Amino acid sequence: MTRFALTVEYDGRPFMGWQRQDHGPSVQQAIEDAAFAVTGERATVHAAGRTDAGVHGLGMRAHLDIEKPITPFRLMEALNARVRPNPVAILDCVEVPDDWHARFSCLARHYEYRIVNRRAPLTWEKGLAWRIANPLDAGAMHEAAQLLVGKHDFTTFRSVHCQSESALKSLDRLDVTRDGDRVTVRASARSFLHHQVRSMVGCLAMVGEGKWTAADLGDALEARDRTRLGLNAPSDGLFFVRADYA
Amino acid sequence: MTRFALTVEYDGRPFMGWQRQDHGPSVQQAIEDAAFAVTGERATVHAAGRTDAGVHGLGMRAHLDIEKPITPFRLMEALNARVRPNPVAILDCVEVPDDWHARFSCLARHYEYRIVNRRAPLTWEKGLAWRIANPLDAGAMHEAAQLLVGKHDFTTFRSVHCQSESALKSLDRLDVTRDGDRVTVRASARSFLHHQVRSMVGCLAMVGEGKWTAADLGDALEARDRTRLGLNAPSDGLFFVRADYA
Repeated sequence: MTRFALTVEYDGRPFMGWQRQDHGPSVQQAIEDAAFAVTGERATVHAAGRTDAGVHGLGMRAHLDIEKPITPFRLMEALNARVRPNPVAILDCVEVPDDWHARFSCLARHYEYRIVNRRAPLTWEKGLAWRIANPLDAGAMHEAAQLLVGKHDFTTFRSVHCQSESALKSLDRLDVTRDGDRVTVRASARSFLHHQVRSMVGCLAMVGEGKWTAADLGDALEARDRTRLGLNAPSDGLFFVRADYA
Repeated sequence: MTRFALTVEYDGRPFMGWQRQDHGPSVQQAIEDAAFAVTGERATVHAAGRTDAGVHGLGMRAHLDIEKPITPFRLMEALNARVRPNPVAILDCVEVPDDWHARFSCLARHYEYRIVNRRAPLTWEKGLAWRIANPLDAGAMHEAAQLLVGKHDFTTFRSVHCQSESALKSLDRLDVTRDGDRVTVRASARSFLHHQVRSMVGCLAMVGEGKWTAADLGDALEARDRTRLGLNAPSDGLFFVRADYA
């Protein structure tokens, strides 16, 4: 048995999410089916993060165990050939030790949220960004975001379906930058709660539009109350960028 | 009658090209139909450039004449509402003098060609970039590209369907840069021949792959012979970025 770590890019639009589900297509199933086509083995694919429906992956990390002797390069090429026509690509494949785990060995996760700040609707980026028509003050968003950085109880920013034992999380980075009409939010942490990035982005957008002050954001955090959430941003603009390991 | 200049973004994937055609959808027709829905007038939309099937627009400029009194802002909003579900967006709309012409007043056109240089297939960028599996030497591509900058007879890099009177054109800029696995070619000129950017990019890719030397590129240019073209790059990666006016 050999454990392989994969770096995976995917377009989240046609999927119900990363995780395999009975009622629709998933990235996990697409890769597992491709692996079965390649090896004849029913391997489970474990990921660093289980992204929601419509969320994209630029560099998701995952692993699977294969009995059949195969080189990482051949496995990568064969998976890419067999995963078609699903919009999933294996960017990298390496052998890892048997105790390496895409989820449990992960030390940090990095997300990016893409906003296009303009009145006109999206064209080739439809489903790949959140279009916000009202002018956003990215500077105010970045400043307010710093209130969320650090160790906090993120109950307000957590889906009611979140299965994490604790809402206490350390947020290492939450940066907001603007380049023309694009506003990008970058979030880094060891781990995130379900919907945490989208919930933080939704509230930052309210700050950017002037509907909330930074103090409102701080109050929402302090409240530890999901009903105090300003807005959950749509999945469209969210990309899982990278996972770090030792 | 008021002449309005539009800045237009579009996803070229579903279109037969910019120009109105009998046998399929075009960007021009999508905007003209939207304008008719807004004003009841059959206005012709003239563009700075008539991009091919599958070519995208980030900031195409176009103009149309409207009899009905309407402000630029209202026209823009109404066109964006009516052009749906076509992936076309009017980013800007301004009144211009009656002798301003999107095509004939244009002083410079800027294109960008996006290459993703990796073995894995594209996912969310499918149709929005050219994936080249073999490693590209972007430095060699940039160096060779400088042979094409300046005033030349670009017959080799011109479609047999090109309707331009002369193949003599001045190319102001042809830059090749790399950022990770993305290689971007930026081309600027007062005007381009039909397929010129794609033909130049195709040949630069051959240089990048080591199949051609810079001297081969120079020879192809000197030959002024379409049959000496190395390769015409696919439309997928081509974006009309901007048009300049006085």
